[in-house]
Amino acid sequence: MKNTPLPPHIGALHPGPRNAITDVAGVTVGHTTIADGPIQTGVTVIRPHGGDAYRDRVPAAGTVLNGFGKSIGLMQVEELGVLETPIALTNTFSVGAIAQAQIHQCVAANPQCGRRLPTVNPLVFECNDGYLNDIQAMVVSEEHYLAALAAAGPGFAQGAVGAGRGMSSFGVKGGIGSASRIAPIANGAEYRVGALVLSNFGRPAQLTLAGHAIGPMLAERLAAAGEPEKGSIILILATDAPLDARQLRRLSLRAGAGLARTGSVFGHGSGDIALAFSTAYTVPQDSSRPMPQIAMLHDALVDPLFQAVADSAEQAIIHALWHAETVEGRDGHSRRALLDVMADRISQFSEQAP
Amino acid sequence: MKNTPLPPHIGALHPGPRNAITDVAGVTVGHTTIADGPIQTGVTVIRPHGGDAYRDRVPAAGTVLNGFGKSIGLMQVEELGVLETPIALTNTFSVGAIAQAQIHQCVAANPQCGRRLPTVNPLVFECNDGYLNDIQAMVVSEEHYLAALAAAGPGFAQGAVGAGRGMSSFGVKGGIGSASRIAPIANGAEYRVGALVLSNFGRPAQLTLAGHAIGPMLAERLAAAGEPEKGSIILILATDAPLDARQLRRLSLRAGAGLARTGSVFGHGSGDIALAFSTAYTVPQDSSRPMPQIAMLHDALVDPLFQAVADSAEQAIIHALWHAETVEGRDGHSRRALLDVMADRISQFSEQAP
Amino acid sequence: MKNTPLPPHIGALHPGPRNAITDVAGVTVGHTTIADGPIQTGVTVIRPHGGDAYRDRVPAAGTVLNGFGKSIGLMQVEELGVLETPIALTNTFSVGAIAQAQIHQCVAANPQCGRRLPTVNPLVFECNDGYLNDIQAMVVSEEHYLAALAAAGPGFAQGAVGAGRGMSSFGVKGGIGSASRIAPIANGAEYRVGALVLSNFGRPAQLTLAGHAIGPMLAERLAAAGEPEKGSIILILATDAPLDARQLRRLSLRAGAGLARTGSVFGHGSGDIALAFSTAYTVPQDSSRPMPQIAMLHDALVDPLFQAVADSAEQAIIHALWHAETVEGRDGHSRRALLDVMADRISQFSEQAP
Amino acid sequence: MKNTPLPPHIGALHPGPRNAITDVAGVTVGHTTIADGPIQTGVTVIRPHGGDAYRDRVPAAGTVLNGFGKSIGLMQVEELGVLETPIALTNTFSVGAIAQAQIHQCVAANPQCGRRLPTVNPLVFECNDGYLNDIQAMVVSEEHYLAALAAAGPGFAQGAVGAGRGMSSFGVKGGIGSASRIAPIANGAEYRVGALVLSNFGRPAQLTLAGHAIGPMLAERLAAAGEPEKGSIILILATDAPLDARQLRRLSLRAGAGLARTGSVFGHGSGDIALAFSTAYTVPQDSSRPMPQIAMLHDALVDPLFQAVADSAEQAIIHALWHAETVEGRDGHSRRALLDVMADRISQFSEQAP
Repeated sequence: MKNTPLPPHIGALHPGPRNAITDVAGVTVGHTTIADGPIQTGVTVIRPHGGDAYRDRVPAAGTVLNGFGKSIGLMQVEELGVLETPIALTNTFSVGAIAQAQIHQCVAANPQCGRRLPTVNPLVFECNDGYLNDIQAMVVSEEHYLAALAAAGPGFAQGAVGAGRGMSSFGVKGGIGSASRIAPIANGAEYRVGALVLSNFGRPAQLTLAGHAIGPMLAERLAAAGEPEKGSIILILATDAPLDARQLRRLSLRAGAGLARTGSVFGHGSGDIALAFSTAYTVPQDSSRPMPQIAMLHDALVDPLFQAVADSAEQAIIHALWHAETVEGRDGHSRRALLDVMADRISQFSEQAP
Repeated sequence: MKNTPLPPHIGALHPGPRNAITDVAGVTVGHTTIADGPIQTGVTVIRPHGGDAYRDRVPAAGTVLNGFGKSIGLMQVEELGVLETPIALTNTFSVGAIAQAQIHQCVAANPQCGRRLPTVNPLVFECNDGYLNDIQAMVVSEEHYLAALAAAGPGFAQGAVGAGRGMSSFGVKGGIGSASRIAPIANGAEYRVGALVLSNFGRPAQLTLAGHAIGPMLAERLAAAGEPEKGSIILILATDAPLDARQLRRLSLRAGAGLARTGSVFGHGSGDIALAFSTAYTVPQDSSRPMPQIAMLHDALVDPLFQAVADSAEQAIIHALWHAETVEGRDGHSRRALLDVMADRISQFSEQAP
Repeated sequence: MKNTPLPPHIGALHPGPRNAITDVAGVTVGHTTIADGPIQTGVTVIRPHGGDAYRDRVPAAGTVLNGFGKSIGLMQVEELGVLETPIALTNTFSVGAIAQAQIHQCVAANPQCGRRLPTVNPLVFECNDGYLNDIQAMVVSEEHYLAALAAAGPGFAQGAVGAGRGMSSFGVKGGIGSASRIAPIANGAEYRVGALVLSNFGRPAQLTLAGHAIGPMLAERLAAAGEPEKGSIILILATDAPLDARQLRRLSLRAGAGLARTGSVFGHGSGDIALAFSTAYTVPQDSSRPMPQIAMLHDALVDPLFQAVADSAEQAIIHALWHAETVEGRDGHSRRALLDVMADRISQFSEQAP
Repeated sequence: MKNTPLPPHIGALHPGPRNAITDVAGVTVGHTTIADGPIQTGVTVIRPHGGDAYRDRVPAAGTVLNGFGKSIGLMQVEELGVLETPIALTNTFSVGAIAQAQIHQCVAANPQCGRRLPTVNPLVFECNDGYLNDIQAMVVSEEHYLAALAAAGPGFAQGAVGAGRGMSSFGVKGGIGSASRIAPIANGAEYRVGALVLSNFGRPAQLTLAGHAIGPMLAERLAAAGEPEKGSIILILATDAPLDARQLRRLSLRAGAGLARTGSVFGHGSGDIALAFSTAYTVPQDSSRPMPQIAMLHDALVDPLFQAVADSAEQAIIHALWHAETVEGRDGHSRRALLDVMADRISQFSEQAP
């Protein structure tokens, strides 16, 4: 990314030191990227903490902005208010394979899973990378999931990597993006919010970059402008604020505000889903262990977190576009990098931290 | 509105001839404005058609972006997928009075309502105008509702009128705004979408006007910038496209995209609610009458309507700000018009129809 | 209740000492009954604790089994997870009047309500008593609400009283019923669950009493058997178990199991709504006060509470029928007491505490 | 089933000729049963019609009574209101494998699936058969799904077959059950409702058989009475009534009433999910094909369908218990047939068609 302009900074809040979801302490991210001719796909995992996600569950909740998607696991998250696996991202036709991998991994670590202990709830989100990737080949397997898990750390690549390898947004190359914000609360506390997106949505004419409606110009420069939207976006939010599942659901919805500011209208074909989790405490799987005793944040103090969610979600989408390199995939299809197509225009929006 | 700059046009779709919700044929709007010193409030009604809304019910559905609000009637709309009264807007503490008025009006026109026929479902939305208006005085009464009904027509005022009389947005005067868009569908059809908002949300620093983040400058110019958000917005969408309740729920959610583009993050204190209805057919209250036999629009063709909803919602919010005049209310409180505060900046965003 | 058979006991759990919702410590119930020829209606209030419900809010959540109803306040309960008024029950056309009364009462006690502090969320549930009561007369007023509040205590009448005065169930007299259960938890704790119902649902042929399908016989004895169901039921659950809003929503749904066991299929015309609250802690309205720091009950331990909810809900419905006396109302309409119509059959189901 | 008593008949409605879900014209059911020592599991499929479910989609909607489960596909069904695969039932850890099989099957029949046409939405429901079956072995594969599809017909076995092979209910053998009812509508029409359940829920003491609380006696006779509930139930409803997705969601909820009458309180560990579909019309995948033009049934006429859903769901659960034979599985675990354990008591409840 040498010599490229810095991405514009969204909003008035400061980012964390990495400007990534891993600014929320304990959160790590890993990728497996599969790039081999017509196969351009992969897996990305987000671990909420360094321990066993099944034994020590973090509170979580989601919002389905558009349910035209094939993710799995949200139903139980909504009922019980906790995650119990790392969060996995992949392509639409690989959800089943990754779910099986999550089960295998959990059973290996917890032999009573599905016997004395409850079955584990796989949690896999997806977008359709079928434009670049031969999605029908269904090559993603358990080893890719395990490799992504093994690679998880606080530093991680963005752009055309992991689950984002074959994704497109606004007719250019999409993929993985991340950002973070520090939210000062009226009671004097300060919490972090991090976002990671798998960005695969948007028609060229819709693109709004930090308020600049550059979509029409982008559409002129691209042949593909007229395609109907078939994409999707997954928005994962992490925070260290003490929130329960009800409050996390409220947070997750605000990712939609950031998404909308990039030009999305939550298009019919776009399965747009947000999920938020907190690292402030864990809920034990084993009911004989003590439950956490936490004072949640008062709802009247939550607005800076809402702003941080919207801003970091928008910023993460911009980062996905910014870091994405041009990728060629199946049948001669390719997606160019936004910075290649619009370099002349974008250089004027260089980053200005608040 | 002489000598004021035209508001910027949002998006690539064309407006209808009035650029208002009444561009959807049959829809009418009426206001009662109550402006008397510390009392600055009112009632606005939207009639879906010229007949009896209880006998001939239009399909409808809503989305609760933020349920911190006191509107009534949505539960039954969600269950049955129809409206059965005109839609009423007023202040938070007057919901009960207007609900009673709707019942009286329906019983007067349908003497078997609540006896042989089902009870009627009042549908009243609200925002808190307590900054300008002495909301505790609870002056709104049935006669105000009936007067608004009687005044309903295709032409209607915007800004500090009706339910919008005492409302604030972004630290300046808010109120009633409306807009419309014409959506060309891939199958050759063309449908209209109209929006009407009761705008009472937003802190000054958040304001984004047609992509221009003028909020920080607005906040500098206003004393009130640091107030937490206590507002709300109600977004009513009308369309003549043939859609069922499930599809109308999808439409209503997209109003949130337009709202987000103005700077909203669906703040904690803001009860943000969208409701969409279709005029393409009606469902009889009396089950002995025949049910409509309509081919709904295929979901894969709905994107232009989604875009029209987001664009007309954003446009309607801008219109509310544009038309609002400065109002002085209780205890020396006042809200200035945006055009007064920001005239020098806003003149550059004059309307450019696509 | 002299010389009447005791009602059958539902399930294996023990009731509390009153076998009423007021077995949950701090909960009180009051009625205003209006019985005057064609006017047969009233108000019932449930106070979650002895303090100010707006200042110290109890956690709560609800389930809409059938949204064909006109209750108000549930939207905000779902968003924020708390109550902030006493729970009020009345007839369908009086919801607005009682909501206004709740606002007045809250503003009187909290002068900054709607100004510096948020507006209060009225919470009023309703059933249609229009068969016995001249519901169109809309006689219920603020004084009736205040009188019910003033009358609230741990002991209270059941049957054709308060909001239940004009209600019907299964073609006989319905109304107010209540019951409680003590739930032993696997971790050694013991919590109480109380139910109070406003019972106005059910066609005669559907009645199942403690598993006995006596409906067909009841239908034979009543002229009204063929009427379509136009009723509703409101089921209020209280517990002293430490649960958050997500868990209380799970509890509230289980009231539907008890309801179903009496013969209900959640009929189209019956707005069936359940609401559960906990008295284990309160959430302050004022965000400068400290938030509660409570270890919630582990979800894996919640089954005895689910059973207690279902059993106490079914028991409360039976109690409503058992205590209801014959009432004559408008236009010569009357509803007989179940015990009058079916005394010969019912005597065999006398109560057997477990 | 020679010499066994007939199961009791639930309710006043008549069954269809098969008293099974396949009484709804066009619906077929097939099983693959895997019974090999410690492996006791399988797959059951329900085809909504004889054509391609992806090309011609039936309207559908579901209700999550308890979301503690791992089914996939409901999110898109809720958003779009249609099914696009056969409905598959299997064990918890095989959901991913069957989802992959559904994708393969759809792509084979529709080569543009995931390319020009949308990706297909797998729809797989599950219960945990880990008591009898070595669920960790994860033996279910694509061939089992294809075999079940190939076997689908109007006649099919019930009990310990297909996905029901390893399931338990009330401490005895559960599995697959089905039933149907004919619902006469007030407007003179007559529609059919069919239910098929995968029954794996219930503790022995809870069992209520046609209103008879035989659970306590059953619990005495079984060693396993004290186990916490870990089961689940999936309830699939079919009808030929013309209903849209909103109405089908209403229908699906009423399966919970039938379930509750058997003793269920929707226990914490039981992922209880209902799904209803209509065969009255189909919605084309391809948006260039014409949309159906159907007069839906008026909501005020729907009560006989609600009753039919509740009654056929309860009846299907009873049939699952009635047809289930004793099965021995992993580690010496076995579940006896209800008819073996309770033969002396059950013979008195012989079937009495209305």
